Amino acid sequence: VSIKEIGEFGFIKKISRGCVVRPDDIIRPIGDDAAAFRTNPEELTLVTTDLLVEHIHFSRKTISGFNLGHKSLAVNLSDIAAMGGTAKEAFVSIAVPEDCPVDYLEDLYRGIKKLASEFDVNILGGDTTASKSDLMISITVTGSVPEQEMLRRDKAQPGDSIFSTGYTGESKAGLHILLNSIPAATEEFQSLLNAHMLPKPFLAEGRFLAQQKGVHSAIDVSDGLSADLMHIAEESNTGARLYYDGIPVSENLKKFCAQFNFDPVEYALTGGEDYILLCTVPPDDAENIALDYQKKFKQPLHKIGEITDLKKLEMVYSGDRVESLTPQGWDHFKSNIL
Amino acid sequence: VSIKEIGEFGFIKKISRGCVVRPDDIIRPIGDDAAAFRTNPEELTLVTTDLLVEHIHFSRKTISGFNLGHKSLAVNLSDIAAMGGTAKEAFVSIAVPEDCPVDYLEDLYRGIKKLASEFDVNILGGDTTASKSDLMISITVTGSVPEQEMLRRDKAQPGDSIFSTGYTGESKAGLHILLNSIPAATEEFQSLLNAHMLPKPFLAEGRFLAQQKGVHSAIDVSDGLSADLMHIAEESNTGARLYYDGIPVSENLKKFCAQFNFDPVEYALTGGEDYILLCTVPPDDAENIALDYQKKFKQPLHKIGEITDLKKLEMVYSGDRVESLTPQGWDHFKSNIL
Repeated sequence: VSIKEIGEFGFIKKISRGCVVRPDDIIRPIGDDAAAFRTNPEELTLVTTDLLVEHIHFSRKTISGFNLGHKSLAVNLSDIAAMGGTAKEAFVSIAVPEDCPVDYLEDLYRGIKKLASEFDVNILGGDTTASKSDLMISITVTGSVPEQEMLRRDKAQPGDSIFSTGYTGESKAGLHILLNSIPAATEEFQSLLNAHMLPKPFLAEGRFLAQQKGVHSAIDVSDGLSADLMHIAEESNTGARLYYDGIPVSENLKKFCAQFNFDPVEYALTGGEDYILLCTVPPDDAENIALDYQKKFKQPLHKIGEITDLKKLEMVYSGDRVESLTPQGWDHFKSNIL
Repeated sequence: VSIKEIGEFGFIKKISRGCVVRPDDIIRPIGDDAAAFRTNPEELTLVTTDLLVEHIHFSRKTISGFNLGHKSLAVNLSDIAAMGGTAKEAFVSIAVPEDCPVDYLEDLYRGIKKLASEFDVNILGGDTTASKSDLMISITVTGSVPEQEMLRRDKAQPGDSIFSTGYTGESKAGLHILLNSIPAATEEFQSLLNAHMLPKPFLAEGRFLAQQKGVHSAIDVSDGLSADLMHIAEESNTGARLYYDGIPVSENLKKFCAQFNFDPVEYALTGGEDYILLCTVPPDDAENIALDYQKKFKQPLHKIGEITDLKKLEMVYSGDRVESLTPQGWDHFKSNIL
């Protein structure tokens, strides 16, 4: 049996039994965006780790070292953001094939360091090793969050409004441009490429949400909007309903989809690697939090749906027609970048 | 230019500038067995990470999932041991090629979990992804140590006695047995294989040494006895002198070397992947610490040499003849397991 057959989540289920042998001070084990454990009476330490593999997550032919470095760190910072934390220390391991020039690696570290310094994150270690064929980057990031403020996946409540901090689907469009060698001559296409290669970690936004009384749950969108919303619903033992007309679709994505005859809402729902945040907020607090957010970040919190008690994902179309929705997203055991 | 040309340490030197942007509370950045930073007033958090790559560090053809799991975690626990710390949480990332059966991976996690639970270490997360060709395991381990007790590489003093907690060279002999498909029918050969595949993390021993007043510095032997001793000497701005007759050589290694006409001391000096600890202790404390160690662990602390102020590595032969020694060890950019 291969992982492809049982799926990544089937595999994780298989191996996650018996992992916690010393439960004291462990607040979040496997299963959230980052693990959380108590290292002092007031604060939790957060740890997250992501592995990026050549030909699966990226191709050296289509991404510069700098952009790959940025992205490798950004996906980890995004996990800390989803917990409401402050990112602190990064550990960067790379496995390097013989044909990878030191120049490319120096550029990769430049990308990592630029983003790290922007968010006041130290690089404190890692491992450098040879690889027989593929370049791999494994980054671990630690962070901290006051225990009372930590955001988690499993506390959504029926009735909560669902907010998103930005657009989804742009990263998938950028990937399509890359994979099909479409010339990114226009500003729109360049911006879609950037969404794929230079995702912005929503750390300040995550901290803001964590400090608001009332934010029940949060997650970052790495697998896809519908798939990650389903993670919140499943972990919280609830359902969720998305508003078809509420899904934010950027002008750039609309232009791209019009040109290639794709459905922009489909892209926004299933894209993956967007690294915006989703959060759920009780309706009484929703308006105030959205206003304060807009004031602080000069960007809207998009209200995209609501949590239900129906244990399934649904889409509400105009005219209040409700249909079931199958969560879909990127599965790197089924697709890859060649 | 490839890493092979400038060497792993040349590369690390190139990229380790500008890594610390927020120096407060950072006690050890890149350059020791683990990074150390303050997360509460009394204790430091330690973090270490190691990447094991198929065809470079191991071959699935010659190591069981269980043993590979054990080894992947053990090398990280050994780094925490070398800092005098207690290991706490582990994060396990794997990149899995399509031809790797779930059975092998479950066996790998069994190996990790068995060792983890032996040392009271939780597995709190990780990442699971596909790989185009090679299996890779990236493990990060956190630990803790009281600030006053932390052991480091850079505090050896001229005159210090150098101690080792065990035998070196056995792991290299085990690797030779593996690579040449030599039948490990005898108990001796089996024990050499085990030294290679099931290294013991010296965590209790590291904690003991950390709690003794007087232990100046420590390191674990991963690159090779002479290479790792050179790390202590270089970081401490000292030299070191080994006693030819003091290098511990196990009976099993002697038998192996006699059979294949190898030099057992050469093996012990340059082997690598031994994961015993070296420490340096001022001569006044040396005898007491060695006695207490023997009493507690029923194993000797081997006195193998002394720290000098000569900024080089030397070997003292019988009759007090002293010769320069070139530190040598395993370099995975130059050699690999096919």
